[in-house]
Amino acid sequence: MENRLIHENFLLHSDVAALLYHDYVKDLPIIDYHNHLSPGLIAKDHQFENCSQVWLAGDHYKWRAMRTLGIDEKFITGNASDKEKFQKWGETVPYTLRNPLYHWSHLELQRYFGVNELLTGENADEIYIETTRQLKEKTHSTRGLLQIQNVEVLCTTEDPTDDLRHHIDLKSQNVPLKMSTAFRPDKAIGIEDSKSFLKYLEQLEQSTGIKISNVDDLLSGLDSRMDYFHENGSRLADHGLEVLPYHETGAFNIDHIFRKVQNGDILSIDEVGYFKCEILKHLCKGYHHRGWVQQFHLGAFRSVNTRMLKLRGIDSGWDSIGDFSQARSLGRFLDYLDSTDQLSKTILYNLNPADNEVIATMIGNFNDGSMKGKVQFGSGWWFLDQKDGMEKQMNALSNMGLLSCFIGMLTDSRSFMSFPRHEYFRRVLCNIIGNDVVNGELPYDEKWLGKILQDISYYNAKDYFDGFEN
Amino acid sequence: MENRLIHENFLLHSDVAALLYHDYVKDLPIIDYHNHLSPGLIAKDHQFENCSQVWLAGDHYKWRAMRTLGIDEKFITGNASDKEKFQKWGETVPYTLRNPLYHWSHLELQRYFGVNELLTGENADEIYIETTRQLKEKTHSTRGLLQIQNVEVLCTTEDPTDDLRHHIDLKSQNVPLKMSTAFRPDKAIGIEDSKSFLKYLEQLEQSTGIKISNVDDLLSGLDSRMDYFHENGSRLADHGLEVLPYHETGAFNIDHIFRKVQNGDILSIDEVGYFKCEILKHLCKGYHHRGWVQQFHLGAFRSVNTRMLKLRGIDSGWDSIGDFSQARSLGRFLDYLDSTDQLSKTILYNLNPADNEVIATMIGNFNDGSMKGKVQFGSGWWFLDQKDGMEKQMNALSNMGLLSCFIGMLTDSRSFMSFPRHEYFRRVLCNIIGNDVVNGELPYDEKWLGKILQDISYYNAKDYFDGFEN
Amino acid sequence: MENRLIHENFLLHSDVAALLYHDYVKDLPIIDYHNHLSPGLIAKDHQFENCSQVWLAGDHYKWRAMRTLGIDEKFITGNASDKEKFQKWGETVPYTLRNPLYHWSHLELQRYFGVNELLTGENADEIYIETTRQLKEKTHSTRGLLQIQNVEVLCTTEDPTDDLRHHIDLKSQNVPLKMSTAFRPDKAIGIEDSKSFLKYLEQLEQSTGIKISNVDDLLSGLDSRMDYFHENGSRLADHGLEVLPYHETGAFNIDHIFRKVQNGDILSIDEVGYFKCEILKHLCKGYHHRGWVQQFHLGAFRSVNTRMLKLRGIDSGWDSIGDFSQARSLGRFLDYLDSTDQLSKTILYNLNPADNEVIATMIGNFNDGSMKGKVQFGSGWWFLDQKDGMEKQMNALSNMGLLSCFIGMLTDSRSFMSFPRHEYFRRVLCNIIGNDVVNGELPYDEKWLGKILQDISYYNAKDYFDGFEN
Repeated sequence: MENRLIHENFLLHSDVAALLYHDYVKDLPIIDYHNHLSPGLIAKDHQFENCSQVWLAGDHYKWRAMRTLGIDEKFITGNASDKEKFQKWGETVPYTLRNPLYHWSHLELQRYFGVNELLTGENADEIYIETTRQLKEKTHSTRGLLQIQNVEVLCTTEDPTDDLRHHIDLKSQNVPLKMSTAFRPDKAIGIEDSKSFLKYLEQLEQSTGIKISNVDDLLSGLDSRMDYFHENGSRLADHGLEVLPYHETGAFNIDHIFRKVQNGDILSIDEVGYFKCEILKHLCKGYHHRGWVQQFHLGAFRSVNTRMLKLRGIDSGWDSIGDFSQARSLGRFLDYLDSTDQLSKTILYNLNPADNEVIATMIGNFNDGSMKGKVQFGSGWWFLDQKDGMEKQMNALSNMGLLSCFIGMLTDSRSFMSFPRHEYFRRVLCNIIGNDVVNGELPYDEKWLGKILQDISYYNAKDYFDGFEN
Repeated sequence: MENRLIHENFLLHSDVAALLYHDYVKDLPIIDYHNHLSPGLIAKDHQFENCSQVWLAGDHYKWRAMRTLGIDEKFITGNASDKEKFQKWGETVPYTLRNPLYHWSHLELQRYFGVNELLTGENADEIYIETTRQLKEKTHSTRGLLQIQNVEVLCTTEDPTDDLRHHIDLKSQNVPLKMSTAFRPDKAIGIEDSKSFLKYLEQLEQSTGIKISNVDDLLSGLDSRMDYFHENGSRLADHGLEVLPYHETGAFNIDHIFRKVQNGDILSIDEVGYFKCEILKHLCKGYHHRGWVQQFHLGAFRSVNTRMLKLRGIDSGWDSIGDFSQARSLGRFLDYLDSTDQLSKTILYNLNPADNEVIATMIGNFNDGSMKGKVQFGSGWWFLDQKDGMEKQMNALSNMGLLSCFIGMLTDSRSFMSFPRHEYFRRVLCNIIGNDVVNGELPYDEKWLGKILQDISYYNAKDYFDGFEN
Repeated sequence: MENRLIHENFLLHSDVAALLYHDYVKDLPIIDYHNHLSPGLIAKDHQFENCSQVWLAGDHYKWRAMRTLGIDEKFITGNASDKEKFQKWGETVPYTLRNPLYHWSHLELQRYFGVNELLTGENADEIYIETTRQLKEKTHSTRGLLQIQNVEVLCTTEDPTDDLRHHIDLKSQNVPLKMSTAFRPDKAIGIEDSKSFLKYLEQLEQSTGIKISNVDDLLSGLDSRMDYFHENGSRLADHGLEVLPYHETGAFNIDHIFRKVQNGDILSIDEVGYFKCEILKHLCKGYHHRGWVQQFHLGAFRSVNTRMLKLRGIDSGWDSIGDFSQARSLGRFLDYLDSTDQLSKTILYNLNPADNEVIATMIGNFNDGSMKGKVQFGSGWWFLDQKDGMEKQMNALSNMGLLSCFIGMLTDSRSFMSFPRHEYFRRVLCNIIGNDVVNGELPYDEKWLGKILQDISYYNAKDYFDGFEN
């Protein structure tokens, strides 16, 4: 079947949308300010062996789809060959209609490999051979793939204990690609899993040379790693949390909580929340002190299926959307930082779209006129990273804040082939504006609209993350 | 006023949608895998006396609309004549515009009686006479009405203590219609109303011959009824719950809770939840053991108006949508069953559409590749059983799961005239796909799309409920 | 840039919508049954000095937008001149695209001043001069502005201790405008802030001459003020609450709670909730006794940014949408009143659109046939007072209740220039119905649809608030 899907005006349902996309935003470079790419593969400019390696390995979105269709795990994360896995994925694709995978997949095959057919079980073999052939060429190394998509800057995500050797390595190579990283200390506050937490403290001791016997030591260790990240160009932090916990300082004794963990005692839910909150307060003040941007990814309910978690590990597709109460503690936490003017530039991402309006209005509480779009409502994340999710996020932001100040798209992805999502986002964005013009809800002033679309697609992020350029 | 509403391409807003509907799905039989029809009326092939009896009696959707308009209860559930009630309903219909009742009503009058006019106060009398005339014909007995709508299989809902005599009776008649039932033990876990619970235990004792003095006896009694239902062809269970409660086994002493109820002591909320959870664990393992499908209807806030509840009883229109937290305990409960591979095929229905994305992603946590669409996001239920609700459910399912694996529509209805809702659903579904094609978001491969639409309309359910055929 | 935005068929995307709007609803007067206008400015028929005074001062919607864009507070609520502030607002307007401010602003400039240009930084000066010139004319006094918009009735909001002198004054002037007020006793139940509460009791003592030493005195004081408001034509009450609290009477000792506050003791969250609930019960029975309408505005999370609260005070743009659980306690509270048939006509407004369906179904629990639309789902409020919010509210109401019984739009505004929002609402409403006709989801019976649109735009409110005419 010929690909009548990915054409010049894909997702652009009006002439206005098409003109705005093609004349104003299509050719802008990409600033992917948050993702989970492997910096090692970038520094080494790795060549993937085949299309399954670059496209299927690690992609839990595809895995979930295959499992839902009833495909055996052998062909997903099991010991089937890469070719067999690609075959099964090809057979799955026609059943993914209306899922973002259907669009992503064909857009990716087209943009990276020029494949103009729709992938099915019938042509999977042929496409596997062709894409694998191209992957052996220099144009399709990791950095080649990024260059195909005009990626100017990217920012990976690392644990505080990471030595950032690959970031240092890449910088020494003087390539045009700018790669930064985000400081993600989830494990340093993950006290609810006391075994992993204590083990993590050992890692932190090793990476800092600081003996961690109490909370002050922990904070010193984290300070030391923030300094190290900062020295190596990091200007961004990231946290993954069900909710942003908030307690008044002094409600519990944090040293006592720490000792309970050391002694293997059980903590109450409030003790866990208090500990997290206090460490977060310290970290967030540290981010502000260093002029960083902080990100909070809120609302995931992770590792729900413990049987499969044991078999396949984390991040293999057993997570879902939670329905936690967000507003109160989020507001109080941000207010705590703001009350002493220690609130950094902040990006809030929610996983449950029912929270869109809470987040869209929360950011307004802390946009205090000190800069353009200081507190941001992050783009549709994970399960929401699709047309409907993007539209809902942008509609909520538009109605309750200023879309014009939005820093736009990021992949948040593990995949070297996910960058056409920026194109996808830009098309969706231009289409929204085009529809408004067609419906008479916006006047058709091409230059004004084009300028704002360029801001959202590129320039707002460029200004917001100016530290990345250092 | 002539009915310019219900025409061939009603709800089909594109040629593609119309073609797909008419050529692929229109003529497929109906599998109504969950409803609340009276099996007695089916077994006896009852003839209704008039259109008020078949159409207004028991339909709390219509009652709520009439009350909102300010119509006296006398004409709703009171002692006005059937003809007067029909008249009042006719006067109400024009005020129901945009409510699903407006579409349902005219679709139903057209499909069952060939009425091509829009019902109003002016023609209510005439339509009452005509429909009542037809209802006296053999074509319009209960089974006749089902046959008009091409119902192949249906599944009612019965309490564990039901003797299933009507199901047995129908089976003995060797009619083409297949009727199964769902095991719904809400009363067996309804410990929060201790009086009704204790009374229910007596009923269970009578139906099983087992003296129920403790929890083990209760479980034995329920096992015995599951066996009885299984012997009589039941392969489905159903539960109506605000939330699926979860507690670790051992958190409380279930025997102690049982004795407190026997003694008339007050239970804490956690004790109630614990009891429910433990009984549910047992039941769900029993369903798995027997190869049944289990359904959970979550999130209704029932009998809110106690004054009217006393006057009119349950299920008479005093219920609404709750905003309970669902994700955590639902995830934990399903994980509990899955951890020992005792999770049955499961259908989750949410009443609050704000939970759509929670449910759409929750099912993915337990779709483990063992079969196609093992855990299902149930079709828009009750208040959500309308175009907007169906579209939102299917959009969430599409974006976060696989629409192609969806088992589709059910009526969940008490009414013998509600089966055109399957037609309504199929039209909405075809329209969604048609729109995607028109917008270029799906390629127009008629056979592929037609096949998937057929699966969702009929074949997926047929495969999923293969036990119904026994 | 010429204003190609506000034209005859703005927001009317079909011929049907245009016809229905222009022929049926455009010319109906406005009943603005809830707002926060200053009665003093109306009684005195105040002339504003310039467009910043009437349009920017007090408008926290505009302030938030300016702050988000990075404009210094000096130009927002600070000591910059009115002309400078208008200039900064003009510069901001093009960045508000897709926010309701963009539509509101141009609609308001057009309707009150005949400005046909789009406001920008370039023409701000010119428009400031022109609008300020017109504001000096008698046509543009406060009552002139209301007359331009054909406002027939309006209802402000006052604290129980208000002397209503301006309402009495206006009545004595025998002008055509009818002005009533709503009784808003938020401070009388605001026990969580004990200092303000005790200070408020003193105010209540002064306005009533009743010494308030205990709860009974407080209730007597409030009764006295209800009587006073009633004598002066008030027939409406209003409450702003995160949630409607509910506790069984007797769960706590209210006199004990009151004494704790007097003694400066800290209250538990439940004690605060209990106190509020008991006072509310008394007030709501009082409203019912007097035949009033009661309103509940639920779900705002106010004054989140305490630093800016201290600098700028309340209602200056530091509030957002909460995600409180609403259904259970709301249902129980309404049921409490209904159980003795003491539930007044009630309007429920939710700030979080995720609660739309909870509210849309909650009202059905208490619409008991005693009158048309007794319990109402209030129009999109505050952050939801825009096209998307209005559409979602009306869609939820349509699908789960009867749109035809809806009392429609209110401004809830502090601004004398916000009345074109009624026009905006009516256009959105007509457009919804027009779309349904075009899509074949409603038959095109112009008179029937026109009648229902007139009811929602004017006559339903007129009937509902018949007491306002007294």
